[in-house]
Amino acid sequence: MLSRLRAEFDAGLDVFLQAFPADASAGIYEPIHYLLALGGKRLRPIVALAAAEAEGGDVADGLPPAMAVELFHNFTLMHDDIMDAAPLRRGMPTVHLKWDENAAILSGDTMYTLANMALVGTNPAHLSTVSKWFHQTALEVCIGQQLDMSFEDRDDVTLAEYTEMIRLKTSVLLAASLAMGAAAAGASAERQAAWYRFGEQVGLAFQIQDDLLDAFGSDAVGKQIGGDILADKKTYLWIHTLASGGREVLESWQGRGDDPAAKIEAVRGAMVAAGADAEARAAMDRLVDSACAELARMGLDAEHHAFFSGIAQHVVERVS
Amino acid sequence: MLSRLRAEFDAGLDVFLQAFPADASAGIYEPIHYLLALGGKRLRPIVALAAAEAEGGDVADGLPPAMAVELFHNFTLMHDDIMDAAPLRRGMPTVHLKWDENAAILSGDTMYTLANMALVGTNPAHLSTVSKWFHQTALEVCIGQQLDMSFEDRDDVTLAEYTEMIRLKTSVLLAASLAMGAAAAGASAERQAAWYRFGEQVGLAFQIQDDLLDAFGSDAVGKQIGGDILADKKTYLWIHTLASGGREVLESWQGRGDDPAAKIEAVRGAMVAAGADAEARAAMDRLVDSACAELARMGLDAEHHAFFSGIAQHVVERVS
Repeated sequence: MLSRLRAEFDAGLDVFLQAFPADASAGIYEPIHYLLALGGKRLRPIVALAAAEAEGGDVADGLPPAMAVELFHNFTLMHDDIMDAAPLRRGMPTVHLKWDENAAILSGDTMYTLANMALVGTNPAHLSTVSKWFHQTALEVCIGQQLDMSFEDRDDVTLAEYTEMIRLKTSVLLAASLAMGAAAAGASAERQAAWYRFGEQVGLAFQIQDDLLDAFGSDAVGKQIGGDILADKKTYLWIHTLASGGREVLESWQGRGDDPAAKIEAVRGAMVAAGADAEARAAMDRLVDSACAELARMGLDAEHHAFFSGIAQHVVERVS
Repeated sequence: MLSRLRAEFDAGLDVFLQAFPADASAGIYEPIHYLLALGGKRLRPIVALAAAEAEGGDVADGLPPAMAVELFHNFTLMHDDIMDAAPLRRGMPTVHLKWDENAAILSGDTMYTLANMALVGTNPAHLSTVSKWFHQTALEVCIGQQLDMSFEDRDDVTLAEYTEMIRLKTSVLLAASLAMGAAAAGASAERQAAWYRFGEQVGLAFQIQDDLLDAFGSDAVGKQIGGDILADKKTYLWIHTLASGGREVLESWQGRGDDPAAKIEAVRGAMVAAGADAEARAAMDRLVDSACAELARMGLDAEHHAFFSGIAQHVVERVS
């Protein structure tokens, strides 16, 4: 089901993008094609399509919101990479470095516009509902990025503040993907809300696993380990460690880049000593359990229940 | 009618923005309030409201598209000012200088999102139609900015290319404001298209008048005269002059900032000698005549005919 939906989404997006070729309009679409070609799991559009099907619709119903969330997500990557001065995205040069900042700003704005254009393909009977989910969520994603940037200058960020930031920056878009897919297939407001709650919890768990993998993941999967630690990033683990006896170690290494290996080892040691990794895993498990309980209450057919249950379990079990 | 619609728009926008106060969400809305408070003619939202009324609707029908176009227009100003490295907007520091580039990028994205949120307030029966106008137009505005930037590195821009660029960068949004206002009030596709053609021609005339005022306007209105000339900007006048015997003068002054007054005088002289100002005025008059002919065919009531005719005439007669 996953590979079928992925193939159907890729085919649908290709058709949509044929109207915006890379060599048209003085190259404005070229960075868009570049960024999309870098890959990604396409998790959001796939679950949007699956939710549409689970609610009795078909791929054609789910495709407009699926394309909208994927284009929107990649637009935020293009702009966030400027704001974060990130050199690499999925191992390749970011748009603002491969072209320049102006190209990344304007092609990003264009990509956001394409997301809106894709959304308008939604069944007109459901367009208003789907649009409200989408734009409210887009606003929350912007606020999440603002909070994330504002945390850089603060050392007193609480776990509650961090959780709200990642909820806005990452969970709500996964949640809205599900709610929009369901809404586009005519689901009731109650069922849209249930899909949203399921996605919100899975999304939060997903981000905590991201923090865990960055600090404790295996090098075998090709992702640099310890990047967050070297950048003194205020992750779930960092904030928990600071509040649970690890302040001295964190502060002694803060801002230092002279011995990366030693810094990673020392900070990881402090995280384990503070019980941060165990607490993060427990928090993740609680979220996934709660998401699965929500799913059980929704009364899906066996195939869709297994699919979404698998999505939730994958969050906990993935290694990259 | 103009002042009534302006007051109704301002009141409606104020109510809408109360949900997004400047001190909320780590300050993300602050640059939005700042930019809107710098003023502006509010021409686009006013004509959107007027078109809604002319088609038998009321202010409530026209307000969602009116807010959407004004918020979108100001979002493009915020991002264009970054791309153009502009220090001032309406005589005050631009957002990226008063805050920083990241704030201008992210609050711009947020402002675009608010435009979309405002639009969703449109009568659901007309939302799909209004949204299609809006997003297609947003895309064209992005392409217009891309063309504008691509022209900076070229000396062979033709009048046709210039006209297409300003059509995309400025005319289509005025045109779409009218079409969207009419559509939100339930106008037919034919009438939406007629409003669009009227607005497109008025918008083109407006931009040519902008070029003329910048080169030949009166200092009395407080706007710096000759800014385009000093920046070697490829305006209607510049391109016409280059193609009509003025190449030598333009090239001899290009890139020079050592004697601004002499440069302005010399380039203006070349423009007049090439007949560029006369041709620009003639082109503007043709556009306004054509727009008024379109208006006459629309069979509006006397009050609305007079209002829109006045808008078109104002373009030619304005001094700022």
